[in-house]
Amino acid sequence: MKPLILFRVDPRAVDPASALQRVEPDAPLLTATDLAATRGDGVFETIVVVDGIPQAVEAHLDRFERSARLLDLPAPDRAVWRRAVEAVAAELRVPRGAVKYVLSRGDEATGALTGWALGFAPLRQRAEPPAETDAVLLDRGYRSDVAKTSPWLLQGAKTLSYAVNMAANREARRRGAGEVIFVSSDGYILEGPNSTVIARIDGEYITPPVEFGILPGTTQADAFDALRTEDERVAVRALTPADLFTADALWLCSSTRGAAPVRSLDGRPVPVDHDVTRRIFAHLNARKA
Amino acid sequence: MKPLILFRVDPRAVDPASALQRVEPDAPLLTATDLAATRGDGVFETIVVVDGIPQAVEAHLDRFERSARLLDLPAPDRAVWRRAVEAVAAELRVPRGAVKYVLSRGDEATGALTGWALGFAPLRQRAEPPAETDAVLLDRGYRSDVAKTSPWLLQGAKTLSYAVNMAANREARRRGAGEVIFVSSDGYILEGPNSTVIARIDGEYITPPVEFGILPGTTQADAFDALRTEDERVAVRALTPADLFTADALWLCSSTRGAAPVRSLDGRPVPVDHDVTRRIFAHLNARKA
Repeated sequence: MKPLILFRVDPRAVDPASALQRVEPDAPLLTATDLAATRGDGVFETIVVVDGIPQAVEAHLDRFERSARLLDLPAPDRAVWRRAVEAVAAELRVPRGAVKYVLSRGDEATGALTGWALGFAPLRQRAEPPAETDAVLLDRGYRSDVAKTSPWLLQGAKTLSYAVNMAANREARRRGAGEVIFVSSDGYILEGPNSTVIARIDGEYITPPVEFGILPGTTQADAFDALRTEDERVAVRALTPADLFTADALWLCSSTRGAAPVRSLDGRPVPVDHDVTRRIFAHLNARKA
Repeated sequence: MKPLILFRVDPRAVDPASALQRVEPDAPLLTATDLAATRGDGVFETIVVVDGIPQAVEAHLDRFERSARLLDLPAPDRAVWRRAVEAVAAELRVPRGAVKYVLSRGDEATGALTGWALGFAPLRQRAEPPAETDAVLLDRGYRSDVAKTSPWLLQGAKTLSYAVNMAANREARRRGAGEVIFVSSDGYILEGPNSTVIARIDGEYITPPVEFGILPGTTQADAFDALRTEDERVAVRALTPADLFTADALWLCSSTRGAAPVRSLDGRPVPVDHDVTRRIFAHLNARKA
């Protein structure tokens, strides 16, 4: 997707007002020695913007900080990055767009951190809840406890090293599906390459624990808020593939789409609850920053 | 390290002669939407250049092709990339330098593949064999069979998604060591984040099989050639941590350094064979492209 807006962000700026520099989105920005490009060595977030309002900004900044900490990067200055998000969002003059912001370990030749923030638009119109999707289960190769035993594997960090996620998405397409749900080597449901899982089982909405080395889902968290408001039962608990195959509904949550209903898993039909999907979508769109 | 030379490489060029464009190495080259920078979605190789001669070029091109295939990238045109390596090497007017070349899935805004080749110099002088190093064992989290069972994990491909490798190197430094040797979750020695293992046990030189989801080591392969020339016994075989702790010598092989002798593993001393280290180094430096 072609970005409409690009700001170079100086992660070390003392004054947030001077941290941003507007540049042409299709002009070269990064040197060939930027560690983002040479090592996938950086972190990022993507925030949806509805009618000019960036959604769940603080939750995304929290996760950005967490990812930076897991990668031993200098702590991002929240004021700088908040301003970057707001500056991009203010210019996205469509009902639904997105801001992506990136912190790289920087240029290996100079040692200077690099940062940038992009604006994309339009995304799917806000009036339209996410389409049904077909998912497949794929082995993530890691045990569910590696975030504890082996933190250098960076599970739970949203890094630029996404080649495995992209390869998994290609494997899903080869299998005629649109989405992946990763399974740990010890048999637990983890997350999608770009999404968080919610399963409804016996009326309870369940998402796997972040202790399994997955990202804290900002959209899943707000979907749970919506469900709590409606007095639904929500829980954070381990799930297995068998649980998903017998779920009475299943969603994959991501910022840009919301909670997308899964209609099949490994080719087996999964019931879709359009009513709940619509209600979660309405709640997400009504968020303030 | 600051590059001296940079060529933009057009991976789709029909005529290798027109594929290269010399550009300033410290000027921006990549857009903020290049998949190298946004997803670590590309492959690379680094070749050492001794007195203007790039070493083991065909073996590196073989591995580059293999990595591209594992990532479902279009097959690299060997003539284009060979020419890129030669063009950079020809300009490195020092006894010892390196060429790094990169193929990215390209700009997500335009879909066009991107490529570039960098020249770095000088590296350690050719007369000086690699220094002794201290290594630690770290869990790689994956079983030794994931390359077969779960190819989307991209084990065995040399990708730009190196954040885990960089984090493992930082963990080694925290433990007072300079190098990592990864161990599979089922207890087999794999490789270093940037190197291939050779252990000498009862006089036999052993390296782990690539079927374990590791890179085929170009330097290790040429070190084995050197050893075969001297009628030493070499073998490709599974190794365990216990094997390494009782080895009578241990090396970590990489293009830019050669075969570096390991003098300690997890703080326990490992015997160093300076004579063999020197002989391997001399053999590597005498290679022709």
